[in-house]
Amino acid sequence: MNRIITISREFGSGGRELGRLIAAKLGYAYYDKEIVSRIAERSEMTETYVQNVLEQKPFLTLPIHVGVSLEPTADPLLMQSQELFQLQCSILKEVAEKSDCVIVGRCADYILSDSHPFRIFVYAEMESRLRRCRETEGVGQDLSDRELRNQILGVDRQRSDYYEFCTGNKWSDRLNYDICVNSTNIPLEELAESIAMVVHASKNS
Amino acid sequence: MNRIITISREFGSGGRELGRLIAAKLGYAYYDKEIVSRIAERSEMTETYVQNVLEQKPFLTLPIHVGVSLEPTADPLLMQSQELFQLQCSILKEVAEKSDCVIVGRCADYILSDSHPFRIFVYAEMESRLRRCRETEGVGQDLSDRELRNQILGVDRQRSDYYEFCTGNKWSDRLNYDICVNSTNIPLEELAESIAMVVHASKNS
Repeated sequence: MNRIITISREFGSGGRELGRLIAAKLGYAYYDKEIVSRIAERSEMTETYVQNVLEQKPFLTLPIHVGVSLEPTADPLLMQSQELFQLQCSILKEVAEKSDCVIVGRCADYILSDSHPFRIFVYAEMESRLRRCRETEGVGQDLSDRELRNQILGVDRQRSDYYEFCTGNKWSDRLNYDICVNSTNIPLEELAESIAMVVHASKNS
Repeated sequence: MNRIITISREFGSGGRELGRLIAAKLGYAYYDKEIVSRIAERSEMTETYVQNVLEQKPFLTLPIHVGVSLEPTADPLLMQSQELFQLQCSILKEVAEKSDCVIVGRCADYILSDSHPFRIFVYAEMESRLRRCRETEGVGQDLSDRELRNQILGVDRQRSDYYEFCTGNKWSDRLNYDICVNSTNIPLEELAESIAMVVHASKNS
């Protein structure tokens, strides 16, 4: 069975960068936005549309009057959301079967639980996230600290809602992860090196 | 400034063992029950008594009728609790000034925050904690799983209450730590090795 590493991360914590570094150190494949690209390709939709549908709780896409009946087949938007999630599951399973890999986001820790992935959660202090957003991600240059902070918390909330809706588990529950790292004071390069060692030693896969 | 590593841990997660291994790898001093022994020595009380007083929220030691006035000097038990906590603070600061060290528990992460300790939180799945309690700690041999589970959760609750009472912070808040590790599937020896690397790289001290 291939070794799978999954990364869940707070927005602006450097989780994607850490995932890339771990994959490079271990010589693993790395999947991040590639998953959405593949879903878009197979579903013949645009990446932006797929991303939007996947990152909302399906019922949020329903018009309010539909709320009286949650029969899954009643609404085309809900059906689409479910179909895309199924497609996401299939694609994640395909890449996990192909080779050792690092996967960022997409509830991969839950969807691939049969492969016993090594599950990482990356977080950081708000000050550090604001800085990283502006300096590294090029996000929020034109926003005040307060505005950017609200945006960051909004993305976290969306990720948390999506995770909880799809998995029934709490995104922030440490028991869903093998290691939770605060990237505020630890350089990502060295953190990746240490985590690569831990992955080798762990009994997860 | 000396390098300080603090360890907070769920009961039965192997946090003390991990602390000992990290201290051995780095050649740091290791403090666990030694802190209570020193408090007992200086206060001329028994270790058991000191431990009991320190691990309860001071107001829990108050008789109910005293509840109408929380004037700190009103009750000898509350005074004692406060004095022992002050003594704990002094002793922690002394050991932190003496040499690089690993300190388990005792709110050391908060008390020594000026020294920017590297703060570790150790947790594990309940199944693993039950096993570790019985096999390694020699605890709960005569208890059912359910009874031992309740005991484990009781100790966690006590630690959490004590931490929150003394520091005003939540024991379980990941932002109070630099790294949170789930010891369920990671051998402690290798985990200690990796954490030692991370400590060297971190900007905490």
